[in-house]
Amino acid sequence: MIKVVKIGGNVVDNEELLSAFCAQFAALEGPRVLVHGGGVMASRLQEKMGIPARMVGGRRITDEATLQIVTMVYAGWCSKHICALLQKAGCNALGLSGCDGDILRAAKRPPISVEGREVDFGQVGDVRKESVNGAALRKLIDAGFTPVINAINHDGSGHLLNTNADTVASSVAAALGAELIICFEKSGVLLDKNDDATLIARIDTEAYRRLLAEGRIDGGMLPKLENAFKVLSQGVPKVVIQHSSAPLGTSGTSICL
Amino acid sequence: MIKVVKIGGNVVDNEELLSAFCAQFAALEGPRVLVHGGGVMASRLQEKMGIPARMVGGRRITDEATLQIVTMVYAGWCSKHICALLQKAGCNALGLSGCDGDILRAAKRPPISVEGREVDFGQVGDVRKESVNGAALRKLIDAGFTPVINAINHDGSGHLLNTNADTVASSVAAALGAELIICFEKSGVLLDKNDDATLIARIDTEAYRRLLAEGRIDGGMLPKLENAFKVLSQGVPKVVIQHSSAPLGTSGTSICL
Repeated sequence: MIKVVKIGGNVVDNEELLSAFCAQFAALEGPRVLVHGGGVMASRLQEKMGIPARMVGGRRITDEATLQIVTMVYAGWCSKHICALLQKAGCNALGLSGCDGDILRAAKRPPISVEGREVDFGQVGDVRKESVNGAALRKLIDAGFTPVINAINHDGSGHLLNTNADTVASSVAAALGAELIICFEKSGVLLDKNDDATLIARIDTEAYRRLLAEGRIDGGMLPKLENAFKVLSQGVPKVVIQHSSAPLGTSGTSICL
Repeated sequence: MIKVVKIGGNVVDNEELLSAFCAQFAALEGPRVLVHGGGVMASRLQEKMGIPARMVGGRRITDEATLQIVTMVYAGWCSKHICALLQKAGCNALGLSGCDGDILRAAKRPPISVEGREVDFGQVGDVRKESVNGAALRKLIDAGFTPVINAINHDGSGHLLNTNADTVASSVAAALGAELIICFEKSGVLLDKNDDATLIARIDTEAYRRLLAEGRIDGGMLPKLENAFKVLSQGVPKVVIQHSSAPLGTSGTSICL
């Protein structure tokens, strides 16, 4: 079974974390796909260029100048730096935006209401399971390449669009019927976010209902779990939430229906 | 036969020229590879970020900050912008740096003597025919993708290196035994660089010797022709030098042994 692994900008931007992660990813057996962010570095470059990052509800507003910057950062430096490190580790990585091989098309997000006011996010695209060209990704995997996907997409009409790397990872996993491994800075789903000893090793639908009813899940974990169960309902057999430096797929919290 | 087409930074940086070129490239029949530069935009971004471009003998000195910038520009914005335009035109483009699928490895250039003084070009790599992973490129082409290659390479030890796009194009063409089409802003090899009517349609070894002996070739054309005959001696069957907006491979100057 294919495994789709997601890392965020905080890992990509930290040489020590990134190097530890690349070693784990290269050691993973079988067909696999990496989806990565790069938001930390993008915000820094925006600052440097005098275009401060504008976020609404945790999401980046992407005007034309910002689109150029995030494309340069995600598809340029982050993608190629990660691929060079993975090649060194013996993994035949191949960096991809949605326009590459038409693997992923996004639809420009219309202005939406956020916290009571209408927000135009600009050159931002949304993706879902149906946006993914699973046949193209399988061709690349079958030819021996390991897709390394960033959050830059295209609309099929010549325009690039900035998308959310988490949604890209979920959509790709759903389209491929792949296991989804979400890496972050904690060891998994914790009852107490400050105590690694409160790690829950396995959560199924019944356990999730019980934990919810008892109010025992940390607030910061709720969106991650909600998203995991959403993805499971879309044909992903298993979601793992874990630390980026731990063995992939066999540590952290395993979530099934 | 595969065709390798090269465009420079002046085409990539000009929306009108780029769009005309993409239409021609998409219309080209049979397997093809695009190699592109992006130096004009890289120099502009360097200026903006307060790191002025330093060139010696027409070649960019690449320190760590400059490497990040050229990687962002060539492999990020230029590569993805071109691929989105080609996808729109119906060509299944796939943007690649050397690290992607390990298609091209470069060796870091040792300090060399330029105009009498020793110059360390920094994070710069040199490539030749043997640097190209022809099997990987053929796999991608056979799977229906059109490789779009930029000048960022890796050394196999986790480091990215800036290379020269002309040399990348020549090396890829030689490794694939492909026809090489070099696009620039003139209609081909001209006897008088200011007069398109002086276009030479075909040059073989004998004609080249005669033109050289008679001193009839414009000085600016000499390096292009020298390079063409060098590439022909490495197994490339034909080199075409032509305008980027003209039909590819059937206009301009055709050069054979």
